[in-house]
Amino acid sequence: MFGNSIFKERKSLAAGVALAAGVSAAVFAVNPLAAFGANHPNLVISAADVDAMQGAVEQPGRFRTAFLRTQSAVDRALDAPIAVPVPADAGGGYTHEQHKKNYQLMYNAGVLYQVTEDAKYAERVRDMLLAYADMYSTLPLHPKRRPGAENPGKLFWQSLNEAVWLVYTIQAYDLIRPSLTDAEAQKIEQGALRPVAKFLSVDSPKTFNKVHNHGTWLTAGVGMAGYVLDEPEWVEQALLDLDKSGKGGFLRQLSTLFSPDGYYNEGPYYQRYALMPFVTFAKAIENNEPERGIFDYRDGIVMKAIDTTIQLSYNNLFFPINDAIKSKGIDTSELVLGVTIAYGESGNPQLLDIAAKQNQILLSGDGLKVAQALDAGKQQPYEFKSFAFRDGKDGDEGALVVLRQQIDGDQALLFKPAAQGMGHGHFDKLTWQFYDRGEEIVTDYGAARFLNVEAKNGGRYLEENETWAKQTVAHNTLVVDETSHFDNNLKVANQNHPSLLFFHADDQVKISAAEINSAYPGVSLKRTLALVNNPESGNSFAIDVFDVESTKKHQLDLPLHYNGQLVDTSFKLQGFTDSLKALGTNNGFQHLWLKARGKPESGLAQVTWLNDNGRFYTQSSLVDGETELLFTELGANDPNFNLRSEKGFITRRDGVKTHTFVSVLEPHGEYNPSREFTLEAESQVQALQHRQAGDLELIAIGMKDGATQLLAYNRSSNVPEDLENIFEYDGRQYQFSGRAKLFQITN
Amino acid sequence: MFGNSIFKERKSLAAGVALAAGVSAAVFAVNPLAAFGANHPNLVISAADVDAMQGAVEQPGRFRTAFLRTQSAVDRALDAPIAVPVPADAGGGYTHEQHKKNYQLMYNAGVLYQVTEDAKYAERVRDMLLAYADMYSTLPLHPKRRPGAENPGKLFWQSLNEAVWLVYTIQAYDLIRPSLTDAEAQKIEQGALRPVAKFLSVDSPKTFNKVHNHGTWLTAGVGMAGYVLDEPEWVEQALLDLDKSGKGGFLRQLSTLFSPDGYYNEGPYYQRYALMPFVTFAKAIENNEPERGIFDYRDGIVMKAIDTTIQLSYNNLFFPINDAIKSKGIDTSELVLGVTIAYGESGNPQLLDIAAKQNQILLSGDGLKVAQALDAGKQQPYEFKSFAFRDGKDGDEGALVVLRQQIDGDQALLFKPAAQGMGHGHFDKLTWQFYDRGEEIVTDYGAARFLNVEAKNGGRYLEENETWAKQTVAHNTLVVDETSHFDNNLKVANQNHPSLLFFHADDQVKISAAEINSAYPGVSLKRTLALVNNPESGNSFAIDVFDVESTKKHQLDLPLHYNGQLVDTSFKLQGFTDSLKALGTNNGFQHLWLKARGKPESGLAQVTWLNDNGRFYTQSSLVDGETELLFTELGANDPNFNLRSEKGFITRRDGVKTHTFVSVLEPHGEYNPSREFTLEAESQVQALQHRQAGDLELIAIGMKDGATQLLAYNRSSNVPEDLENIFEYDGRQYQFSGRAKLFQITN
Repeated sequence: MFGNSIFKERKSLAAGVALAAGVSAAVFAVNPLAAFGANHPNLVISAADVDAMQGAVEQPGRFRTAFLRTQSAVDRALDAPIAVPVPADAGGGYTHEQHKKNYQLMYNAGVLYQVTEDAKYAERVRDMLLAYADMYSTLPLHPKRRPGAENPGKLFWQSLNEAVWLVYTIQAYDLIRPSLTDAEAQKIEQGALRPVAKFLSVDSPKTFNKVHNHGTWLTAGVGMAGYVLDEPEWVEQALLDLDKSGKGGFLRQLSTLFSPDGYYNEGPYYQRYALMPFVTFAKAIENNEPERGIFDYRDGIVMKAIDTTIQLSYNNLFFPINDAIKSKGIDTSELVLGVTIAYGESGNPQLLDIAAKQNQILLSGDGLKVAQALDAGKQQPYEFKSFAFRDGKDGDEGALVVLRQQIDGDQALLFKPAAQGMGHGHFDKLTWQFYDRGEEIVTDYGAARFLNVEAKNGGRYLEENETWAKQTVAHNTLVVDETSHFDNNLKVANQNHPSLLFFHADDQVKISAAEINSAYPGVSLKRTLALVNNPESGNSFAIDVFDVESTKKHQLDLPLHYNGQLVDTSFKLQGFTDSLKALGTNNGFQHLWLKARGKPESGLAQVTWLNDNGRFYTQSSLVDGETELLFTELGANDPNFNLRSEKGFITRRDGVKTHTFVSVLEPHGEYNPSREFTLEAESQVQALQHRQAGDLELIAIGMKDGATQLLAYNRSSNVPEDLENIFEYDGRQYQFSGRAKLFQITN
Repeated sequence: MFGNSIFKERKSLAAGVALAAGVSAAVFAVNPLAAFGANHPNLVISAADVDAMQGAVEQPGRFRTAFLRTQSAVDRALDAPIAVPVPADAGGGYTHEQHKKNYQLMYNAGVLYQVTEDAKYAERVRDMLLAYADMYSTLPLHPKRRPGAENPGKLFWQSLNEAVWLVYTIQAYDLIRPSLTDAEAQKIEQGALRPVAKFLSVDSPKTFNKVHNHGTWLTAGVGMAGYVLDEPEWVEQALLDLDKSGKGGFLRQLSTLFSPDGYYNEGPYYQRYALMPFVTFAKAIENNEPERGIFDYRDGIVMKAIDTTIQLSYNNLFFPINDAIKSKGIDTSELVLGVTIAYGESGNPQLLDIAAKQNQILLSGDGLKVAQALDAGKQQPYEFKSFAFRDGKDGDEGALVVLRQQIDGDQALLFKPAAQGMGHGHFDKLTWQFYDRGEEIVTDYGAARFLNVEAKNGGRYLEENETWAKQTVAHNTLVVDETSHFDNNLKVANQNHPSLLFFHADDQVKISAAEINSAYPGVSLKRTLALVNNPESGNSFAIDVFDVESTKKHQLDLPLHYNGQLVDTSFKLQGFTDSLKALGTNNGFQHLWLKARGKPESGLAQVTWLNDNGRFYTQSSLVDGETELLFTELGANDPNFNLRSEKGFITRRDGVKTHTFVSVLEPHGEYNPSREFTLEAESQVQALQHRQAGDLELIAIGMKDGATQLLAYNRSSNVPEDLENIFEYDGRQYQFSGRAKLFQITN
């Protein structure tokens, strides 16, 4: 795409990832408009794509349908006058939303111009861009910027949104460039595109160079502008840092922000967001400089990142760890783009299964490929897998572990011995969640935020995101002495992470263990979670063994946040029925109303709840007679009604140096008031044992029908597949090879 | 069907509804088996139906699909051994569920026998019936019957379930009778069918004669048994009371339990339940004695009752007034039967729209008609209407009013100036609910019950059904001095009812008013509710004007139970943030936690919440500076966690003799965190006025854009359509004809 022959030569010599620096940007700035014309468009959509798209819209099928829908929406939008207002509002406000609408409209109109060759579409983009060119140079920093922030925008309150504007707008410009006179192009470039690119690069060096998703957006916008405006230097800087050292920039981000398994360390909610500039810029690089092999970079990390984003979902929604808004799922526009581009690259028919669920066809060359493949019925079921997605750029900073099984419904257990994940991370080391039959059963609060709702802290993260959502007690993991992991110190949290001890998955047993010694001084936390099923009996269980070891005595709290209505407990509850008090004063405990407490006798403590999916869930725990269960509801110290009234119970053991929490979660029965029947509302578990024998751990679940489900696993870090384990249980000998086995014992 | 020629003659002479008594049952008992054979089956399914069904299962289509599904399920069930256990358990328990399964299986196997002529189906029914015949005479009253209850069963804990057993079983017997030897038939009839019929009629006279849905089931079972077992006397008794006086019995039930508009006075949840025996027995009467014209009885009340049941639903779920389980909807088996039989009678293509939503084809002659019509694409959109369904057997005991409009989604406002509705009725005179875009926005708790969940009071109604769900404060209507309507006295409540003052519906304005003076001594309550829309502005509002007049000073509480998360209030809240207390001590107030209170200045008080449907709702009320708003959450004094944590706010005006509560509910905006935009999170209402001018009431809603939406209505009971109303507002004159008009005033 770069018209300058010197540059082309240099590039082919450099062939690959890191280009040698040397030719200054000034060389190309002399006559920046000279070489344009034949090569537009060539970012995400190429000229060859346009030819194919023009043919496809004449044929019936998904692509034509998507085209007509977009055309009809854009035609309606063209009826309204152009509005390029002086920036005034924060997210959710009028000017913020109008500028967002503008770049989306410009992009769509640009695509329609290429496909239809109807001048009206190009003219609207042109007129809008001219209006931006008139206004942009007059703009101060945005009035609603956060005071003292290093990332203010001009069109928007933060530079992140400004970079998104550029990513869309440079594509729109690329698409309509052939329709412009040179004078128009010059005005638009000098008045808007170049100033925005400059503002986002040399004028925002900290954000541009930052290895962080804001940096990705800025480098993607500036790099793509570099291709379109014939500024290879901008591409270099986007790829390699403003100083081209490789310390920052897009390649560094690709090398650092994703683990070798394609896991983004802020979690899937931000992963799908981060994905957008990665796949967009990668596709633009591929179209302009295929010799860079960007999709092969780091063993295909872009493709892995797309796939991992899909894997980190359940029933179409992302696992809501860290700061996540829970309704976000695989149909998010970023992942539509990701799946579309990934299918364009790989032709993997399983991606079509996801594309079918997304049900959105993009108007691009890859979008056409997806549409035609779906029209031809080529999709194959996407395989969701049990997997430990290693965290950290080198894959050695813990993992996000997903255990899945199909047993009378679709179950998933998420286990989080992952690293902190920077500022949006939660203090929730070793937490877990459980999903069954489409619903979240053991829950994660996600973020405390009402996105863009002005009355709720301007639509930004709420104060309760810090005081509740990030705190350890808001999760399903251990709290020591009513303080949070790392004492809420983000810096310390970012420097430490759990270790994944093992991960194993076979048909009956999926199991993983991890530990961390740095969450609390002098306290070691080790958790093993297993998802098991017995196809003979139809039973399935989530099994939790949580070992705490310390040099001093502590109060140990293990919360479980459940989704549903409490049905029964096997022990007596003392309810606080006519007045309530907050459970504590700090670290999230101040937000919990204590609704009831109970101290079960030594043995089995059972809590049963009913989820809206019509199934019962019983958590059966081993208790020692000194363990209390505290039943809570969220909402104390919340004067603005910012929190949802979620329910939980905390298993509390006070005054111990070491303790092992053992419990089993059992889905059972069905509540069907619509069809008026209720089945197995009661747990079938009547006993629970935990024994150790050498390296082996035995969890025996005694069922009411007399059978025992016995999980045996080897706790050592390294267990060869052919290692023979032998143990005795109730006077009989058992053996199994490898990591673990579920035995069904019937007497 | 009656084989006895003497009887046939008598019947044709009697031709019509009430048969002359005289020939004693003993005449027919001499040789009860003599006349059977050729006439089976002839209850809901006739021999002619069977011919058509046999042909249809050979052709592809919905009917064949339904047939194959049933056949496959029954074939699986036949693999299991017969289980006819000695009755031991209450609802939800093993023997209860097994006997339910048995009658369902017998019925389905009977149908399959007729369609396939495969003897295995008849044999299973025969063997099961023989097992019942062996056991039944040995049975005492059920061990889990309610102590001292007048309606115990033997197979089940209450006779209601026993009657349901008979309704299914007598049909199964009718279907397989041709396969039996006379000896088998005699054993089954003498051992099971006749004893059950006797137990449910002459041995349960109070329940059999009761004008109540239990009575309907008993009379339907016994009457249908009369047809099959050649006992016309039983039919007479079923239709006309055991003593054939017409004081009780099926016809009396049809004349009394439904209003002239087909409204069943317990509300739609029990209406659909009550429907089952009505339509089943009616169809059996029609097949056996078409000359009775049962479907024309009382101006077609059976058909009206079916249609009204459909009308009393929103988004496929029934309006949950009174003791209702909220997940119950139009796909309930009773309404599938109702719609199927109604379509068979009427051929109304709108019923096919409902049948399509139910997505269940019955294996019967009418089921075949539905299947074939759906296969042929004959359905037409079912028209949900705005209507005042009059209550009371003569239609003069108030009404259940439904106001509906389509404005950017599907809205419904339910207004309940209906009668108490007997023991399952709630003390909620003049309450309302609001629905929008598929969701319940202003809610009704429904019943406090976990159907058949043993741990929750044996699956029966919970104590909280009395202490919360039935209480006035649990609804959206006026509470005086923290007591409930009629002081919770059911007898008094059943003797009194509101009066419907008017109902009017045009394109822009649906409006209704009603009053009651008997809910509290010396207090008159009058409420007007309107659902309006302005197609120009796209606005819609639910408008509420509630007049209270009394001779003495009282504390007046008007609760509103909302579904969603509180977003904002226009006034300062004083939150109870670190401890909570119950709002009161009795009549439901003891179950409400007081979470915050506020006393807005005179003028407009606004409360905004966000529903899960992604829309914002703002209730704007006129307040006088002395009105308090109390924000509550349900759950106090609920030691067993039986209640859902629902949210509400109470508008409280203390120490007044008269007061008018005026408010406007406004749906607005959209919260779309998945697609990351939020629109119009703030109310567009900035002023509210209420004025009177002669008979006219004016509600002026001032909008932020400067326009005023002005609802004018004439409050008189009788307003001719051509009455010209003239009034002045802000110095200008307006006029309209008839009941009401919405004016949009732009300055």
